[in-house]
Amino acid sequence: MTVEFVCVGTEILLGNIVNTNAAYLAKKCALLGLSCYHQSVVGDNEERLEETLRTALSRSDIVILSGGLGPTKDDLTKEVAAKVFEKELHEDAHTRQRIEEYFKNRKSRTVTENNWKQAMVPEGAIVVDNDNGTAPGIILEADGKTAILLPGPPNEIQPMFEKDIEPYLNKRQPEGIYSHMVKICGIGESRAETMVADLMDEQSNPTLAPYAKTGEVHFRVTAKAKDEETAEKLMQPMIQELYKRFGDQIYTTEEAVTLEEAVVTLLKEKHMTVTTAESCTGGLTAGRLLNVSGASDVYKEGYVTYANEAKEKLLGVSHKTLETYGAVSPQTAHEMAEGAAKAAGSDAAVGITGIAGPGGGTPEKPVGLVYIGCSVNGNVRVEEFHFQGNRSKNRDAAVVNALTILREELLKV
Amino acid sequence: MTVEFVCVGTEILLGNIVNTNAAYLAKKCALLGLSCYHQSVVGDNEERLEETLRTALSRSDIVILSGGLGPTKDDLTKEVAAKVFEKELHEDAHTRQRIEEYFKNRKSRTVTENNWKQAMVPEGAIVVDNDNGTAPGIILEADGKTAILLPGPPNEIQPMFEKDIEPYLNKRQPEGIYSHMVKICGIGESRAETMVADLMDEQSNPTLAPYAKTGEVHFRVTAKAKDEETAEKLMQPMIQELYKRFGDQIYTTEEAVTLEEAVVTLLKEKHMTVTTAESCTGGLTAGRLLNVSGASDVYKEGYVTYANEAKEKLLGVSHKTLETYGAVSPQTAHEMAEGAAKAAGSDAAVGITGIAGPGGGTPEKPVGLVYIGCSVNGNVRVEEFHFQGNRSKNRDAAVVNALTILREELLKV
Repeated sequence: MTVEFVCVGTEILLGNIVNTNAAYLAKKCALLGLSCYHQSVVGDNEERLEETLRTALSRSDIVILSGGLGPTKDDLTKEVAAKVFEKELHEDAHTRQRIEEYFKNRKSRTVTENNWKQAMVPEGAIVVDNDNGTAPGIILEADGKTAILLPGPPNEIQPMFEKDIEPYLNKRQPEGIYSHMVKICGIGESRAETMVADLMDEQSNPTLAPYAKTGEVHFRVTAKAKDEETAEKLMQPMIQELYKRFGDQIYTTEEAVTLEEAVVTLLKEKHMTVTTAESCTGGLTAGRLLNVSGASDVYKEGYVTYANEAKEKLLGVSHKTLETYGAVSPQTAHEMAEGAAKAAGSDAAVGITGIAGPGGGTPEKPVGLVYIGCSVNGNVRVEEFHFQGNRSKNRDAAVVNALTILREELLKV
Repeated sequence: MTVEFVCVGTEILLGNIVNTNAAYLAKKCALLGLSCYHQSVVGDNEERLEETLRTALSRSDIVILSGGLGPTKDDLTKEVAAKVFEKELHEDAHTRQRIEEYFKNRKSRTVTENNWKQAMVPEGAIVVDNDNGTAPGIILEADGKTAILLPGPPNEIQPMFEKDIEPYLNKRQPEGIYSHMVKICGIGESRAETMVADLMDEQSNPTLAPYAKTGEVHFRVTAKAKDEETAEKLMQPMIQELYKRFGDQIYTTEEAVTLEEAVVTLLKEKHMTVTTAESCTGGLTAGRLLNVSGASDVYKEGYVTYANEAKEKLLGVSHKTLETYGAVSPQTAHEMAEGAAKAAGSDAAVGITGIAGPGGGTPEKPVGLVYIGCSVNGNVRVEEFHFQGNRSKNRDAAVVNALTILREELLKV
């Protein structure tokens, strides 16, 4: 069964927003086992929208449209779809009531006459409630072709898709696609791919596909099956094989789990606390760890030590070390991690010092040189990195590698 | 003159990557004064690509294709475009030499036979050098229609577009679009729009369009003119009118300047230093300030004080304040800012404490409640915020507002 997407909106045509809806829908539909060969974008123009929808319906079984369901007269998606399916629009009592309640719960706004336009639906259509806005979703079926009209805002389309559209599509295409994301840290992309080249060559069901992410490698294991249980049976041998090859470097097999979550979970399991002392990354490692809800159990305080004086004062890095080896040196990274753990009274600490660029590089210490120290229960490990990106990428790479080293050292405890 | 985009790649159809090339090209072409009514995405499939390209050429003057120029036999864009324009492919000596040099400069890789495929170009085509990869750009013209073939990777397409394609298009469409981005902080989106409603209504050349960004409002002032000087003359009265209405809340009129850059510049101008004491934002404000190259002149050290004990120890927040009013209180934010400035010996400081969510909220102190304290030369200001987003958005909003308040207070000095 084939699907294609028509995203409606002048703001996409002007490049004012990136078309994340198309990527979202594409990923979701691929996982449902639907084949997609076309995406298109068109503005809020009746003639062009009608032509685009007719073309899409002529070549695909299901066309998902997003956007253009708002209350203004510029919003035309529903009117054009009704015309193409030769249906009249009539007011849907349930939707009118839902819109009334929606505004009642948001006391600050009053309903304008415009808003009742959103209660109009094509006759015979399936109406899908919008829990996060006024425009309902609409499903039109005729002659083996289906149009699914969804609202444009990501915070409306995504919950609606997951609650109602996904189950609807799953019924239409019973053989679904299930997957695990095997996430690996501490190993380069090309080396990781070489290590599984044979698995990627002989793949059919499940399949194995690599995804690169700054400082990490993710492999998606995907199986096609009639239900989740059958899919799991197909995927597990592949996942076990990946564990044999990568061992502890796999930090999760779940799509939603991030590296910082894995680190925080590990710290909680071991009843340990951590701190951070950051120079070139200036607070980003702390910021990332503390984006994990509940990180307060394992993280109490941290230090941004950009100046040499701050490294001495807050972390106790010795003046002589800074003078002899410089702020960007393995010795300083060592003393930063050690000193941070001591200052915070934590079990673990990372210390990061480097030259993020674009300025500050020398032939001996070029832009991209970063030292990461990691102290766990008093044992300190220091690693040297040479990143090749711009300032922002070098800092991100340093954060990921600091979390990776911290995780590796915690696993040894 | 009309333009449309055809992005080629199965990875976009599968949702594995977001189609940022389309947004990039759309924004650039809109600024060049070209009209765009269609975008499409198609996979590396000869038949569908040919059909898509023919449709695009039938309705637009210029079709820009991105992707599918790689060395493998899956890459078909050039072959299909040559077929549609009825041109033979022949080897371009200059491109062959450029590819040879490209690999010579990257000693680690050897040229494979595949790579010479990238030196093949349609006869009569304009060949555009790729400074960041092997695939050249190609421009085909016939019967008043133009196809421009560009590589897919953003780090190849963007420099190539700016260096060679933009000037080419500018020649084709001599009346260009020039713009300024007037960036405003410290005022809500709807209020800002109300304040310029009359300007937006009566606009023609220049035009005024709002763009929302977390905690900021940006207005793009755009003029159509034969050259930059004429455009500036058209735009300046509008920009001056915006300055009359928003005054100091405008922190820049340049697209590339960020709020943190404006703050760091202001600190440098005033020869002042700053520090940060962060609880719920956990290092993100420091991270953002220190992403400005050269921020070391104004930022020496900072504190992540997640636990109450850390607030007492590092910042000198009084135990009694924390006990009486709680960690999330105007009193604590006040003492955090004051204490941070003192601890770091800096002229200015921000202190941020709040409940980012999803846990930790109470009826009195709900998720999204954030207090920001700002100390400048010993004068402390505290503001209360109620953010409505998820954990990550609430933290971002807190960072932007902290920078905004800091900027406002610095302007008073």
